[in-house]
Amino acid sequence: MIKDLLRQQRIETPSWAYGNSGTRFKVFGQPGVPRDPYEKLADAAQVHRHTGIAPTVALHIPWDAVEDYADLARHAESLGIGIGAINANLFQEEDYKLGSVTHPDPAVRRKALDHLLQCVDIMDATGSATLKLWFADGTNYPGQDDLRARQDRLAEALAVVYDRLGAHQRFLLEYKLFEPAFYATDVPDWGTAYAHCVKLGPRAQVVVDTGHHAPGVNIEFIVAFLLREGKLGGFDFNSRFYADDDLMVGAADPFQLFRIMFEVIRGGGYTPQVAFMLDQCHNIEPKIPGQIRSVMNVQEATAKALLVDRQALAAAQQAGDVLGANAVLMDAFNTDVRPLLAELRAEMGLDPDPMAAYARSGYFEKICAERVGGAQAGWGA
Amino acid sequence: MIKDLLRQQRIETPSWAYGNSGTRFKVFGQPGVPRDPYEKLADAAQVHRHTGIAPTVALHIPWDAVEDYADLARHAESLGIGIGAINANLFQEEDYKLGSVTHPDPAVRRKALDHLLQCVDIMDATGSATLKLWFADGTNYPGQDDLRARQDRLAEALAVVYDRLGAHQRFLLEYKLFEPAFYATDVPDWGTAYAHCVKLGPRAQVVVDTGHHAPGVNIEFIVAFLLREGKLGGFDFNSRFYADDDLMVGAADPFQLFRIMFEVIRGGGYTPQVAFMLDQCHNIEPKIPGQIRSVMNVQEATAKALLVDRQALAAAQQAGDVLGANAVLMDAFNTDVRPLLAELRAEMGLDPDPMAAYARSGYFEKICAERVGGAQAGWGA
Amino acid sequence: MIKDLLRQQRIETPSWAYGNSGTRFKVFGQPGVPRDPYEKLADAAQVHRHTGIAPTVALHIPWDAVEDYADLARHAESLGIGIGAINANLFQEEDYKLGSVTHPDPAVRRKALDHLLQCVDIMDATGSATLKLWFADGTNYPGQDDLRARQDRLAEALAVVYDRLGAHQRFLLEYKLFEPAFYATDVPDWGTAYAHCVKLGPRAQVVVDTGHHAPGVNIEFIVAFLLREGKLGGFDFNSRFYADDDLMVGAADPFQLFRIMFEVIRGGGYTPQVAFMLDQCHNIEPKIPGQIRSVMNVQEATAKALLVDRQALAAAQQAGDVLGANAVLMDAFNTDVRPLLAELRAEMGLDPDPMAAYARSGYFEKICAERVGGAQAGWGA
Amino acid sequence: MIKDLLRQQRIETPSWAYGNSGTRFKVFGQPGVPRDPYEKLADAAQVHRHTGIAPTVALHIPWDAVEDYADLARHAESLGIGIGAINANLFQEEDYKLGSVTHPDPAVRRKALDHLLQCVDIMDATGSATLKLWFADGTNYPGQDDLRARQDRLAEALAVVYDRLGAHQRFLLEYKLFEPAFYATDVPDWGTAYAHCVKLGPRAQVVVDTGHHAPGVNIEFIVAFLLREGKLGGFDFNSRFYADDDLMVGAADPFQLFRIMFEVIRGGGYTPQVAFMLDQCHNIEPKIPGQIRSVMNVQEATAKALLVDRQALAAAQQAGDVLGANAVLMDAFNTDVRPLLAELRAEMGLDPDPMAAYARSGYFEKICAERVGGAQAGWGA
Repeated sequence: MIKDLLRQQRIETPSWAYGNSGTRFKVFGQPGVPRDPYEKLADAAQVHRHTGIAPTVALHIPWDAVEDYADLARHAESLGIGIGAINANLFQEEDYKLGSVTHPDPAVRRKALDHLLQCVDIMDATGSATLKLWFADGTNYPGQDDLRARQDRLAEALAVVYDRLGAHQRFLLEYKLFEPAFYATDVPDWGTAYAHCVKLGPRAQVVVDTGHHAPGVNIEFIVAFLLREGKLGGFDFNSRFYADDDLMVGAADPFQLFRIMFEVIRGGGYTPQVAFMLDQCHNIEPKIPGQIRSVMNVQEATAKALLVDRQALAAAQQAGDVLGANAVLMDAFNTDVRPLLAELRAEMGLDPDPMAAYARSGYFEKICAERVGGAQAGWGA
Repeated sequence: MIKDLLRQQRIETPSWAYGNSGTRFKVFGQPGVPRDPYEKLADAAQVHRHTGIAPTVALHIPWDAVEDYADLARHAESLGIGIGAINANLFQEEDYKLGSVTHPDPAVRRKALDHLLQCVDIMDATGSATLKLWFADGTNYPGQDDLRARQDRLAEALAVVYDRLGAHQRFLLEYKLFEPAFYATDVPDWGTAYAHCVKLGPRAQVVVDTGHHAPGVNIEFIVAFLLREGKLGGFDFNSRFYADDDLMVGAADPFQLFRIMFEVIRGGGYTPQVAFMLDQCHNIEPKIPGQIRSVMNVQEATAKALLVDRQALAAAQQAGDVLGANAVLMDAFNTDVRPLLAELRAEMGLDPDPMAAYARSGYFEKICAERVGGAQAGWGA
Repeated sequence: MIKDLLRQQRIETPSWAYGNSGTRFKVFGQPGVPRDPYEKLADAAQVHRHTGIAPTVALHIPWDAVEDYADLARHAESLGIGIGAINANLFQEEDYKLGSVTHPDPAVRRKALDHLLQCVDIMDATGSATLKLWFADGTNYPGQDDLRARQDRLAEALAVVYDRLGAHQRFLLEYKLFEPAFYATDVPDWGTAYAHCVKLGPRAQVVVDTGHHAPGVNIEFIVAFLLREGKLGGFDFNSRFYADDDLMVGAADPFQLFRIMFEVIRGGGYTPQVAFMLDQCHNIEPKIPGQIRSVMNVQEATAKALLVDRQALAAAQQAGDVLGANAVLMDAFNTDVRPLLAELRAEMGLDPDPMAAYARSGYFEKICAERVGGAQAGWGA
Repeated sequence: MIKDLLRQQRIETPSWAYGNSGTRFKVFGQPGVPRDPYEKLADAAQVHRHTGIAPTVALHIPWDAVEDYADLARHAESLGIGIGAINANLFQEEDYKLGSVTHPDPAVRRKALDHLLQCVDIMDATGSATLKLWFADGTNYPGQDDLRARQDRLAEALAVVYDRLGAHQRFLLEYKLFEPAFYATDVPDWGTAYAHCVKLGPRAQVVVDTGHHAPGVNIEFIVAFLLREGKLGGFDFNSRFYADDDLMVGAADPFQLFRIMFEVIRGGGYTPQVAFMLDQCHNIEPKIPGQIRSVMNVQEATAKALLVDRQALAAAQQAGDVLGANAVLMDAFNTDVRPLLAELRAEMGLDPDPMAAYARSGYFEKICAERVGGAQAGWGA
């Protein structure tokens, strides 16, 4: 039963995780890094090959811009994977220094909106059903711009994009406390994203990036609340000790990841309607194993969350048995689910140890040898 | 013009600020502290006498429970002040150990709801138009209770209270990140309060306590956003360096208070519909001067915010002049408004220096002499 | 081998955890709570009976003040436990409103110092070798007192206490970011405690309370650093999601507790010289099971930390294998050590399930029946 | 008297502030940005021309590497300024992916150490007396490297550098909570920097970057403490709302900057021995006016801090008058010191309004016209 549910899990990896990334201080290069979207897809397919539950890859436009998106989609299919969410990018052109859809200048706003509409075109071309919207928009200094006018501009742009979506398409609005804006971010928290989505309708939902909150914020509460409202569209998974560190999901606080997965399941969110996406930066560790490990971490947290004895939990909660209820939850968390998952993988025809299997596969040696010359893909390319 | 606007300002002081308060470690007593609600009103009247802009006092039930509320209201009137918001209290009975309106036991929930309805009765009796709802409800341990079921219970209670309100009455729903709950608070952030209020209707609004946010959260953004949505009901003013420290408003970060007041004014919130209330604990400083200073701090921040050259600001913002726009704001903040306020007070027939006037008034000596015997009022009484 | 090391572990429980505690909002009472230090010792003995590794109990003076400390020590011995650290208390008298050893008034400072010297007398009388010093001293408002003068006063008091210590005695200086002081705490961080201890000599060491740091601070780094300097005296264990929540240790972030225990072991701190003490408040959960669970949580984290393959870890670290080194650590953390600990307990003649054994013991029913009348012990008594 | 003290103030601007900077998301270019160290010096000289108190500029090696440092120093002199601190850079080469002086590989450590020694050579060549050491070293994942071994390696490198310093030279060790390391930073807090410096001797001191602390940390306390210990070497001034935002100093919290300056003065740190340096990134605002504004912000905070009535403050503090003492401090902060500073500038032969004077100077138009072609200097060049 738990294995059946685990078999259904789908975790999407992001194309940009296969390219180089870094901090403002330095982007370190790595051998074998892809040089174009096609090579990124190949790496994503490799992650799916070893984990069996990562069958789609998210694109970032224009980082993954190609001439022929239908061809890219066919290439993905030939690799045994599919195109997932389309991620818009409105932060890497000089025009966007003071914002994109919230910029004081209507010409810049128009340009930004055109990019968003183009992303929906790409969705049509690739068959993607999900548009992910993260706006870097915000201000660095008090007074720099009018906080409220920026909301008006944001609402205007969102409405146009919403109207352009097809019946089977949706957008996920992402929030983030800060960075790159350091005074006021235009969509800083789930409440802001939620309020905009509620006004637009059912095809606008909130996406929770686990690294985008203020210190101390209880993320699983937000998950539970958004599910109750029918407004949780998915996750951008990663982990952090400090700010938006973008470390591998589950690396900083595996107990938190477990609690989040528990609320997803308890709230009826363990369905394809809630997208499990990774959004991480492997600044110093190798990319493909970094993704494999991350997929496994989400899977382990999911398995533990599925193990929770919900009946016993409800009984203890109803009885006001604080220690008893907590113990039911901790009992699942403390269980070592790795044997179960190894078994599951064997049943699925996979190597029970994905990390070792990848290391043995020779794939890394192959890409290091092949991908010489050309420009390595990076966060910005 | 600015003086006209300042003359209209109304700041409400809380009855509980005149009693003793403290931390979990110790409540220090102070001489002259009131022993009943009538004496608290007298102290509030004294604050109004010296500031001229604090004509109402908020009550906390049952701390301020009396036999005859109409009599209490008449007493207030005789002192030249009025009864402001009624604050419900659902955290000081043994029954509420695991929650009040969100408690797993329906009997406790019923009891809590009855208290809320009683508070509306008191509003009717005192003429108060505002019910302030802060729920201490939450959990200390993961698994302790069902996060989502608690939202269902909360929604149910809020709906009953909402329906009970008269046409001229409203409730303000308060949020708070943590304390006394240390794992998950049932109304932890503005988004949660907002979502509940939107569903209920126009007489449900959000109140912003300036000490109830996670580190780094931009409070003026929330203010601007809620005003845009027509959902900002008022403020519980105080200040903090760390958590919900409940220090005098403006003491920790006067620039933040100024930015908040600026957004209030810019967003059309400088009207009686947005209540300016203090909610502080004078743990170590004397109570009445602590309140006077706090009223003055809000007034100074308001004066500075009114001084902002909005036309110049808009022009710089529109031009994308980051330093210029910031400079317009800072110019107002850097202005010393104390002479202007002294002048205003003189025009209003007040002493230009409220702190000195209070010290000279002999009021403190009088209450120290009179209020001997009986139990001092404290946070819990 | 690991079981041998686990058998040596000693975790000290605090007398005050058996009494009532709460927040500034409310202290909830519990049935069966002790009414005097003798009853607290009985509860501590019960925790030791079920866990086998909690043979000492810390006292808090004056909460645990008795006429005859030698008698109290004999009572402890008769229960199979011993007196651990003596905790000074300088925050619950009216005199200490503005500080104790750092108070501007020399008379208050003298009184505070006398209390500290009296605590050393109690150490002599009880045979305790450890004095724990936590100062609530600090200020709430900028300018309230001279930050530097307060350090001078602190240094002066510490020097006198240090000189009074016997050759076999030491003091542990505790730091805390905030609460009850809300602007500047006189010993706010490990650096301050360390600097004072270094000047005094080897019998002054730092104690790490796991709930006393700013958000994001890496506690295991501090542990590693203090061990390298020979200045880690021990722990006050608890856990938190927000501030000094004083939840059960390991409840909020079990992975952090594991990392801390790993650094203790790696740094040579797994010796009697580094005291493992609990310092928690069971505000809503029952006290004795709360302590048993906490002892078990530390033990589980210790077992996992002992399981780390240090050789494999060092090899991966030396090779710069980021994912490999992390995996070695996670492998230990992900192991379910509960079977191993159940086995260990059986070997020690204990019930393998301490929580169930306590529930079956009838002890709780007994104290509920016996401890009727008299004043329940609370944090402040 | 206050004006005399203000006349003595020296604020050092950083060469890298004149080049482009940004976040990991994007570095926006600006017109007129310098293309080499000589042009950076020219911009720094312009800041001094308008403020009169910014006579030195800090260099960053290798960003400011030149063939002939004596020539660079002469160029500075010809512009009316001097070379200030030399900043080492150990984070922008591929070799430093896992650390520099704390790297597990001794060859990388040797390379890093050689760079530091070369920086001392440059100090000799330029006459600089101050070496600023910020290490980006740290780890991203638990287990990645041995926390304690990294301290051993750090200590070893610092000792070699310390020994190489001339009698009139010193180094300032900088700490930072996080970024670019996201799990454990090797010098994360003042305590770590302090402990290393104490062991080395008087020519090793701590530098406080105002953006490098965990949320809530009281920076002025650290300043007061380090001054008491004789270990405060200087400041890297900037401001932040969230993390290491590197905004203009005083922009986020002017009251905090005032409190810091007050502790500097009260602690005897208003001397050339405590270096006032700026370290900011003007990501979206123009560079030179950004520096001018920042110098003015420090100057204004200093003027306010000098205005504090220290005698009245001490009297109120000694009397335990919490509100009175706070009022003395706030009275200075609330004073508008801009007229005083305008007067001072006029007396110094400067334009009373440096921002306006710069705008009128034509300098910006000149550099925009001249600095065409070649590579703009950026944070990394």
